[in-house]
Amino acid sequence: MGSINRRHFFRRAQHFVTGLAGGMLGGTLPSAADTTLVQGAPASGYGARSRFETIKRWITPSRYPTATASWTPLAELEGVVTPSALHYERHHGGVPDIDPQAHRLLVHGRVARPLEFTLDELRRFPLVQRVCFLECSGNGYREWSGPGGADVQQTHGLTSCSEWAGARLADVLHECGIEPDARWVLAEGADGAAMTRAIPLDKCLDDVILAYAQNGEALRPEQGYPLRLLVPGFEGSISVKWLRRLKLGTQAWRTREETSKYTDLLPDGSAREFSFVMEAKSVITRPSPGGAPLTSGFHEIRGLAWSGRGRVTRVEVTTDGGRSWQDARLHGPVLPICHTRFTLPWRWDGAATRIASRCHDETGYVQPTREVLRAVRGDHSFYHYNGIQCWQVDGDGRVRNA
Amino acid sequence: MGSINRRHFFRRAQHFVTGLAGGMLGGTLPSAADTTLVQGAPASGYGARSRFETIKRWITPSRYPTATASWTPLAELEGVVTPSALHYERHHGGVPDIDPQAHRLLVHGRVARPLEFTLDELRRFPLVQRVCFLECSGNGYREWSGPGGADVQQTHGLTSCSEWAGARLADVLHECGIEPDARWVLAEGADGAAMTRAIPLDKCLDDVILAYAQNGEALRPEQGYPLRLLVPGFEGSISVKWLRRLKLGTQAWRTREETSKYTDLLPDGSAREFSFVMEAKSVITRPSPGGAPLTSGFHEIRGLAWSGRGRVTRVEVTTDGGRSWQDARLHGPVLPICHTRFTLPWRWDGAATRIASRCHDETGYVQPTREVLRAVRGDHSFYHYNGIQCWQVDGDGRVRNA
Repeated sequence: MGSINRRHFFRRAQHFVTGLAGGMLGGTLPSAADTTLVQGAPASGYGARSRFETIKRWITPSRYPTATASWTPLAELEGVVTPSALHYERHHGGVPDIDPQAHRLLVHGRVARPLEFTLDELRRFPLVQRVCFLECSGNGYREWSGPGGADVQQTHGLTSCSEWAGARLADVLHECGIEPDARWVLAEGADGAAMTRAIPLDKCLDDVILAYAQNGEALRPEQGYPLRLLVPGFEGSISVKWLRRLKLGTQAWRTREETSKYTDLLPDGSAREFSFVMEAKSVITRPSPGGAPLTSGFHEIRGLAWSGRGRVTRVEVTTDGGRSWQDARLHGPVLPICHTRFTLPWRWDGAATRIASRCHDETGYVQPTREVLRAVRGDHSFYHYNGIQCWQVDGDGRVRNA
Repeated sequence: MGSINRRHFFRRAQHFVTGLAGGMLGGTLPSAADTTLVQGAPASGYGARSRFETIKRWITPSRYPTATASWTPLAELEGVVTPSALHYERHHGGVPDIDPQAHRLLVHGRVARPLEFTLDELRRFPLVQRVCFLECSGNGYREWSGPGGADVQQTHGLTSCSEWAGARLADVLHECGIEPDARWVLAEGADGAAMTRAIPLDKCLDDVILAYAQNGEALRPEQGYPLRLLVPGFEGSISVKWLRRLKLGTQAWRTREETSKYTDLLPDGSAREFSFVMEAKSVITRPSPGGAPLTSGFHEIRGLAWSGRGRVTRVEVTTDGGRSWQDARLHGPVLPICHTRFTLPWRWDGAATRIASRCHDETGYVQPTREVLRAVRGDHSFYHYNGIQCWQVDGDGRVRNA
């Protein structure tokens, strides 16, 4: 690893010894690429990425451009935090343009005191913050019947991880006085779909956040600016964006998004309702399809694992098509309901093989194979695919979804 | 807290009951602000913040626009992660525009094998990642002789916190073969200042990172794109940006940046050299100067604490000018060499008072007062100010640096 052209090295070494840049080198004109010879750009108020960086969210082609999804390029990212600019999107009626000064949150229904809150009022409640993943329940929908997505972005890009901050929903509900018979909370967004989802009150009193900040600053518009519900571990659509209303009720509403959508049709014809929690899942992001073909020798296998039920406790990796599994290293701090980075050193001998990862979480749950998942859920599911993702490494070093 | 206009509420409630937006409301035209009545913007490849968000880095006025600093608006941020777009800057020769494909890192000097690395080669080394603050040693320089900066951004904004990822420097140095007599490493940037700093080899073999990622994606240009040294706990200028060269030597170089700059002139006329570590520090970000005037009643005091020596173990807050101190709550996970968020509930009675915070770290160090610091360091220091920051709350609710 590492290479150096000897002549080039000594030429550079001479340059370094003079310490005076190209001008001393016997009349040779400085290379235009030597950035030490010119002053760079000044400081700026709000930064942007380099013009050489072009990775972006992939947008699902759709006849309805305001009701589609964009996918996080997980294979091109490092660490655990997803940059807000690359956090996945799933919109039902596009991204509204909301003036935060005019925005209000109404809390009503089975409460003693219906109240309307400004953003400034919500900021006065005690702060809660957590690093947490959000995953669309449709993440991996193409994989139910066999290899579908072309790369990690298309197979797993509907999950992202941010530091969220805001008020504890429980504090705000208690301020309104929760009636004893209240059991469910309907959340409504201010988008063109007036997106609604219902959440059990118990969950709302546990760890739900009225989030106004993401990765330090205000939420991004496509993440619900200026206010979203953040429901850790539950499918992403429950974390209602552009939140404008919470209604407490005695039973679930069974809106469109909980009947014709976001339910799972089982083999016996019944529908699994309220399948909120995102189960344990993992994917190898490097090597993965779309990267440069592998050369034989040392590689570090890298990937992400997560579980909506708590902490990832173990990730196993196979590099021989499932005959043997090795424990990957988990990079700490391992946080509950958070993307967890795993790595494993691997020396590739140049022969075709299959690689895959398998996640365990603190409840003892182990990520299943596609076959096991289909044996339980049948052939009609769209949401909640969390099967083991297998990559085929061909003899020429190319990697593809298998 | 929370308020509602009864008539407005019932009008809205009726609207919600119909569930069919403004058109059903007896011919009333829908409000232009009702974003549920129109489709919003489609998904996008790379997001941007809302047009209503205007906070930005404050730039130190300078005759030399490429050799100045920009300051993170800490009072407007939540959580621990600083958005990359608002990470502080300190440049000595501006921000170079570097093509990552053409960029190389040369390692030479007291090594068995001088080597030059491409970015792709560095990415093949095992990954390390950590959330870590970086602080300019000049942070708070105005405060040495008394209250200086107008607000938190001007008193403390030269510290920021990101998730960094890259290769372990030790791995790369070992690849080159470290000669037994090597003791120091000179790091050089590819900027218009060819910025150099020397680092003890022991530190380089401990926890230094060759960072190519910040908050998930590639470094931002102003943070050293495509490669910077990340030296946890040391003053920021050691984390050399746009890193192009590492030279191993037998002793320190004592370059300009370690003699006329980045040393601390003591009362006896000697200079404290190699004062690398950033000591424990904290600041109350809310309430703080520049915010809306306080109203009497409940407020949550919020702030940040950090130490270059490890974990913050305790933050005390006074709301009565130092007569009594209370332990603030630390929001976990509390990580070493990382911004740590603290909060404390406070009921303001409307009387003028002074508030301040005091940080302890795991070495037992306690953040000093300005007076204690000056008694040791004298009147000529510029760098490494970490005194307790006191805010005056006036009777009208305004807050100012005291």
